[in-house]
Amino acid sequence: MTSIDLNSDLGEGFGPWPMGDDNAMLGIVTSANIACGFHAGDPAGILKVLKVAAERGVVVGAHVGYRDLVGFGRRNMDPSSEELVADTIYQIGAIKGLAKAAGTTVRYVKPHGALYNTIAYDARQAADVITGIKAVDPQLILMALAGAPIVEQARAAELTVVCEAFADRAYNADGSLVSRRLPGSVIHNPAEVAARMLRMVNEQSIVAIDGTVIPLEAQSICIHGDTATAVAIASTLRDTLAARGVTLKSFAHHG
Amino acid sequence: MTSIDLNSDLGEGFGPWPMGDDNAMLGIVTSANIACGFHAGDPAGILKVLKVAAERGVVVGAHVGYRDLVGFGRRNMDPSSEELVADTIYQIGAIKGLAKAAGTTVRYVKPHGALYNTIAYDARQAADVITGIKAVDPQLILMALAGAPIVEQARAAELTVVCEAFADRAYNADGSLVSRRLPGSVIHNPAEVAARMLRMVNEQSIVAIDGTVIPLEAQSICIHGDTATAVAIASTLRDTLAARGVTLKSFAHHG
Amino acid sequence: MTSIDLNSDLGEGFGPWPMGDDNAMLGIVTSANIACGFHAGDPAGILKVLKVAAERGVVVGAHVGYRDLVGFGRRNMDPSSEELVADTIYQIGAIKGLAKAAGTTVRYVKPHGALYNTIAYDARQAADVITGIKAVDPQLILMALAGAPIVEQARAAELTVVCEAFADRAYNADGSLVSRRLPGSVIHNPAEVAARMLRMVNEQSIVAIDGTVIPLEAQSICIHGDTATAVAIASTLRDTLAARGVTLKSFAHHG
Amino acid sequence: MTSIDLNSDLGEGFGPWPMGDDNAMLGIVTSANIACGFHAGDPAGILKVLKVAAERGVVVGAHVGYRDLVGFGRRNMDPSSEELVADTIYQIGAIKGLAKAAGTTVRYVKPHGALYNTIAYDARQAADVITGIKAVDPQLILMALAGAPIVEQARAAELTVVCEAFADRAYNADGSLVSRRLPGSVIHNPAEVAARMLRMVNEQSIVAIDGTVIPLEAQSICIHGDTATAVAIASTLRDTLAARGVTLKSFAHHG
Repeated sequence: MTSIDLNSDLGEGFGPWPMGDDNAMLGIVTSANIACGFHAGDPAGILKVLKVAAERGVVVGAHVGYRDLVGFGRRNMDPSSEELVADTIYQIGAIKGLAKAAGTTVRYVKPHGALYNTIAYDARQAADVITGIKAVDPQLILMALAGAPIVEQARAAELTVVCEAFADRAYNADGSLVSRRLPGSVIHNPAEVAARMLRMVNEQSIVAIDGTVIPLEAQSICIHGDTATAVAIASTLRDTLAARGVTLKSFAHHG
Repeated sequence: MTSIDLNSDLGEGFGPWPMGDDNAMLGIVTSANIACGFHAGDPAGILKVLKVAAERGVVVGAHVGYRDLVGFGRRNMDPSSEELVADTIYQIGAIKGLAKAAGTTVRYVKPHGALYNTIAYDARQAADVITGIKAVDPQLILMALAGAPIVEQARAAELTVVCEAFADRAYNADGSLVSRRLPGSVIHNPAEVAARMLRMVNEQSIVAIDGTVIPLEAQSICIHGDTATAVAIASTLRDTLAARGVTLKSFAHHG
Repeated sequence: MTSIDLNSDLGEGFGPWPMGDDNAMLGIVTSANIACGFHAGDPAGILKVLKVAAERGVVVGAHVGYRDLVGFGRRNMDPSSEELVADTIYQIGAIKGLAKAAGTTVRYVKPHGALYNTIAYDARQAADVITGIKAVDPQLILMALAGAPIVEQARAAELTVVCEAFADRAYNADGSLVSRRLPGSVIHNPAEVAARMLRMVNEQSIVAIDGTVIPLEAQSICIHGDTATAVAIASTLRDTLAARGVTLKSFAHHG
Repeated sequence: MTSIDLNSDLGEGFGPWPMGDDNAMLGIVTSANIACGFHAGDPAGILKVLKVAAERGVVVGAHVGYRDLVGFGRRNMDPSSEELVADTIYQIGAIKGLAKAAGTTVRYVKPHGALYNTIAYDARQAADVITGIKAVDPQLILMALAGAPIVEQARAAELTVVCEAFADRAYNADGSLVSRRLPGSVIHNPAEVAARMLRMVNEQSIVAIDGTVIPLEAQSICIHGDTATAVAIASTLRDTLAARGVTLKSFAHHG
């Protein structure tokens, strides 16, 4: 492998409240997961970040979430299938409209927060999201947690799936992410993050929180954009990979 | 003229709260203005009504509004141009996504409530809505108040415009609608509503609230769907028109 | 026992959307659980129903819920303790303010929907609600599901608790409510509802869905206000109880 | 005059989004205008800032706003009287509940953003806010724009009014604030801000944007908390005033 995708959650401000440094991140990442208005993102702010992504040739995806603005989509919820299918379609449709206006195209869908974590393992909610994606545009790629059951479920439903690894998150020995509520769940040191991802790219493995070496194959690396050190981590990662001959490149060609 | 379009605002429930009898109205109208989630309408409810519209061949439009759920989009607001353009695109995109999932296509845009009334005369907000429509899909038709300045403004901007008359609303002598806050603004008698619209279709005129006969040319008639007598008014209107050889037919062919 | 309280969920409209017949129900019930704006209820609508309750001497309670308007507070959520404590206080405070303006006083708290069901058995979320109630006004009475663990938990925390039975809901043999998703969970026949509650009042027992007779002691009966037959069920219940010498009377004296 | 109040808008984060440095500002100001959830502020965040205010003895007020979260309450709206009265009561009630839980008491009300500017001159909306305040607690003090018509209107309605001057805003010759949309409307230089306020305290006058010296009598100075330089401006102002013998002190005694 000589290239890999780097994705980040962007457009997550809301009204008067910014979040992260979208412009700086759009100078580094190759894929931008754009908030769709349910967990974050207002239309004017989303349109602005989509225009910058379009100018820089960064591929954009719909970062759909639970309808929980105050909780930032990070709280578990149990929408009915009817609700979750329609909520998925609504958000993707909205972001497709804004992407069109910005001169770009939505190429993939990456669920956010609690929805992301739930559908990785919960087949019912996963099926709802898959149904929603296919109903609005079956060409959309699903970005999902490498190694989780949803990957096979979505492929069985004939969606293209891109697996991702989390640059700054610790892994359990079973390949799941260590809960944010536990110590050591987030890795803050840029050099450590870069070393872990270099290993993942070169050896398709990662060291879990208990020291076990576990397999991890991914076509994209997720880097969080909302931390104070996000830009530093992202640029260190890019430079470390580049120094070893690994370039950043999107999994999708921009249409 | 031997046919005219009949449109109504539908999909205006929200979560547990229904509004109007969408199914009955979809058996009468030829165009359905579907709420987009800002003034009313949740994704699951919108998808449901779009599916019924698709089954019955009723043409659908995006009923975009101000972001004011508790006020039902009926309160004046002054969004910035940046906000109003993006809010318009977001809502149209969302409803296009849901329409695709329902097996139909959004053919037109009809702004709602205070936004509708404001842009009829306010060139700045009108320009924002027009910009938003064109950015997401320049083939979309704008449905606007017959005789209002926005009609020419939108045509100058190369949008196709369909003018509408309000079946159950009184008109001022200058062609504007009598404010809902004034007595006599809404006409409740089905026979009177039908007689007024028959005159409009045959003579392109209507009797204003002060008794003046004023010109009124429209390609669509709006019938409200949220009143207790909505279905009775709509069916009386349809039958009265049919008895005089005027059939109901959409201004758009369903693509 | 010669009297019992009858409570119902009221003020559950939102903006343009009404729910149930609040005025009719306020002519029958002795306690009104008033929506607080998170799952339903807008300030103007809440104030209106509080004024009617005040005029008729109906005791009012704060019907606090999860912050999930579109889901009507019926979807499970997992707010943090910090969030749930503060959300409880906020809602109670808001309704206390409106009650003051209406000339009445909030006397109790009854959680709504998914929050009600969750805290009946989940000690962590129950503790958060209890903490919130005590922080804003320790004199408030908690209305809770008869027989559920929260009853003892709240009493141990020195809250006064009123236990309630559900007039139109089927019970499992363990005393929990049959899920709304299962057939037979809601009893629609007014005479059957009345007979069940008469037994509960006289014998402190009820027949569970599997035929078992289980103990059920309650100081209040909950009657739903949002169904088509709510008023008929409530008045049949009142009349049946009255015919057997059981009058309706609040558990609280109006201060 | 040897003392004056210094107030700032605090608690204006929402969910995951912070705003300003509340803790630093609470070390300087003597009155804290606390967001109530309609234009900003979620219950958990509001409770947190109220606790800090209580610890430091900073007097707290209810910073009520229009129900427009995405627009941060800065967009004009036209709620009905019924809505505005009830929205005012709801917000004050909510914040009173949270203040009680935090061990403090709401002593005043300062409307926010577009509502503040509208009621300064619009007698109808001003009357609604005054009615709302009196309905929930007639002892609450209203903080209003020095020189605006609302000051006399509220006093005529028997509310106590505290007039305020804006430290970092330019004034028109008629005593109104220069619109934020115009150049020069906000003064960023801490020394200039301090000099203007020192003059206001000592001479009860200020230099308007056109050079005119106009009278300005105020019992409180407003300092914005949401700008990058807010803390620097506030501390420079405090120190400049202190050097001239003017100490900061609340207009209210903490109950």
